[in-house]
Amino acid sequence: MAALETLIEALRRLPGVGQKSAQRMAYHLLQHDREGAQVLSRALAGAASDIGHCERCHTFSEAALCPICADEQRDARLLCVVETPADQAALERTGSFRGYYFVLLGRVSPLDGIGARQIGAEQLLARAQDGRVEEVILATSFTAEGEATAHVLGEALRSRQLRSTRLARGVPVGSELEYVDLGTIAHALVDRR
Amino acid sequence: MAALETLIEALRRLPGVGQKSAQRMAYHLLQHDREGAQVLSRALAGAASDIGHCERCHTFSEAALCPICADEQRDARLLCVVETPADQAALERTGSFRGYYFVLLGRVSPLDGIGARQIGAEQLLARAQDGRVEEVILATSFTAEGEATAHVLGEALRSRQLRSTRLARGVPVGSELEYVDLGTIAHALVDRR
Ligand SMILES: [Zn+2]
Ligand SMILES: [Zn+2]
Repeated sequence: MAALETLIEALRRLPGVGQKSAQRMAYHLLQHDREGAQVLSRALAGAASDIGHCERCHTFSEAALCPICADEQRDARLLCVVETPADQAALERTGSFRGYYFVLLGRVSPLDGIGARQIGAEQLLARAQDGRVEEVILATSFTAEGEATAHVLGEALRSRQLRSTRLARGVPVGSELEYVDLGTIAHALVDRR
Repeated sequence: MAALETLIEALRRLPGVGQKSAQRMAYHLLQHDREGAQVLSRALAGAASDIGHCERCHTFSEAALCPICADEQRDARLLCVVETPADQAALERTGSFRGYYFVLLGRVSPLDGIGARQIGAEQLLARAQDGRVEEVILATSFTAEGEATAHVLGEALRSRQLRSTRLARGVPVGSELEYVDLGTIAHALVDRR
């Protein structure tokens, strides 16, 4: 049945969803939650059309400036650099950081031809040289690629007389920041070096 | 952010998707697969509007009659009763059944006030009394409720001089038919009693 096959195929585009799960989801929606199917359809279309990127920090935003960048009460001396909007959201949920953020376009991966330029290093340098930033906290993941990213950016910042720090190693090595518990992140933030 | 929160909330309506997974899915779609978000949005809307139920067997169908009910080459003497469209699809994929199907509206659950009437027993009796059906195979799950369903329907069929059989117990007890491997189902179908 075309519409059903199309739906199962489309559900498989979700991360972590294979053929079996997609089938189960499709049958569930059709049999028990058709309203849910329509709600989800509208939410997806709405998100795809309404959510862009903040022009200052590049996180997801419906407005030109995200609520954090638009908040003038935060500490402009601190700029925290993360790999993804999800990492930024995780850090913000800890409630222990009052500065601003800058979201990279991922992390460097020399084997894939992704260097400092591809992840937005130039925009970061421009942002960090606004005359107010005194410390750039490199909160990239503690994976090999995340460390390489922090190293490359740290060097670039230093060549422009900008001080950079790294989250303390309280964050378990090898883990993605997004999935680390909030207490660990908060602690690592205080102990940044 | 409203559109993002709305999307995460909507994704949680999918079975097996909690807050963390929904977040991960939303971020993935927004960051890496916006086209996927739109494809899925359209597939959901299309399925919700185009997929109804076959008027004869009640499985999902875009047409008044599903392809199986519309196929006159199948064996009209055999009618296989299942709990859900997913179970019907699993049986059909075994390739070992050439009769027709009848899809119940779930299974009896006395504690929830769901009896024979609520799952469509009357429509099944009418369907089985078309003058051609000689055997009704009760392929409900081998759970307590599935067994109760088979028992109730078997009695009702017998009172109308209709013969009913049950899938052989090759199907693992306590399992949902949809998730049983095809070989086991095929074997159980041959050994029906
Ligand atoms: Zn921003
Ligand atoms: Zn049908």
